[in-house]
Amino acid sequence: MARWDPGTEDRLRRAALDLFGEHGYDNVTVTQIAERAGITRRSYFRYFPDKREVLFGGSEQLPPALVEAVRASSETSLPAIALDAVRQVGALLVERVDRTAERRAVIASSPELQERERTKSAAITAALCDALAERGPADEARLVSRLVAVCFQEAIERWIDTGEDFVACLDIVVAALRSTAELFPLPVMP
Amino acid sequence: MARWDPGTEDRLRRAALDLFGEHGYDNVTVTQIAERAGITRRSYFRYFPDKREVLFGGSEQLPPALVEAVRASSETSLPAIALDAVRQVGALLVERVDRTAERRAVIASSPELQERERTKSAAITAALCDALAERGPADEARLVSRLVAVCFQEAIERWIDTGEDFVACLDIVVAALRSTAELFPLPVMP
Repeated sequence: MARWDPGTEDRLRRAALDLFGEHGYDNVTVTQIAERAGITRRSYFRYFPDKREVLFGGSEQLPPALVEAVRASSETSLPAIALDAVRQVGALLVERVDRTAERRAVIASSPELQERERTKSAAITAALCDALAERGPADEARLVSRLVAVCFQEAIERWIDTGEDFVACLDIVVAALRSTAELFPLPVMP
Repeated sequence: MARWDPGTEDRLRRAALDLFGEHGYDNVTVTQIAERAGITRRSYFRYFPDKREVLFGGSEQLPPALVEAVRASSETSLPAIALDAVRQVGALLVERVDRTAERRAVIASSPELQERERTKSAAITAALCDALAERGPADEARLVSRLVAVCFQEAIERWIDTGEDFVACLDIVVAALRSTAELFPLPVMP
């Protein structure tokens, strides 16, 4: 088996985004992506297990990075710990990715890509939940991980749309979460 | 084409849950489900498009029911409208479903079922978001729909775990949302 080469992985990603943009996701084959990147179809599968995954390369690093950040956080409440972790990991993430708007448009064009993206998000939320449960009550860990996942997603979308600093986007989303949550009417307890 | 029969649909659902519980989801075929329910494999596909869907029958009614409830709500703020809709639709939903703990265990056992469940949840959130956007700002509609989706999911889980009244579960979750959101630290604005 040939050496794994980060340059090739990058070329595959760029080739895939180019081809999806030109012909539409459904009309592009793995063979075409491999050829455009100058490798064989067989070599493609050393880098990605299927056609979908070329759009999500690197995403497998997010859950362990969040777990590590949760464990290392000096905050004490679960919401503060979770936010601390997403702030750090998100800031690193946005430095490493590019062509995010194109990528988002391709994903929006295909139900199977949306499905894969939801699977990735669920893995992130589950990892965050488990790590938070090491530092506080399980019920609270679950709710906090879901709320932080919403904030993470909204912050990424805002970052793509506006090009503002990711941490600034996250801060705005958290402020919106707080002010919006207050508007949820509490029941009149008997 | 033979007549569609609600009794047969129910029998298929029960047969599927029985078989999944006995043999595991992956080891059961559509043919076995159909046979146990007393129909042919071919007839099965008049009721459900694939093996997964037998666990999600009726779920296609949720998005339009939520849209209708949002349009009809006499509340004025988006969080109150969304909660009103989920309260009504959720209360109807829990009256119609049974064997929810078994169903949840089967879903938890299979990545492809989890995937399908996430697709269903995403359709609910998207329908809620679009309906709320008819009644308020699009940004707020998106955030509210995501937060309400979290509340809906937590309330359903609580309802399955405790057997308490669904609306009471939802009230408890909303109270937790409010008190938890307050704990998210706001940034120190320069």
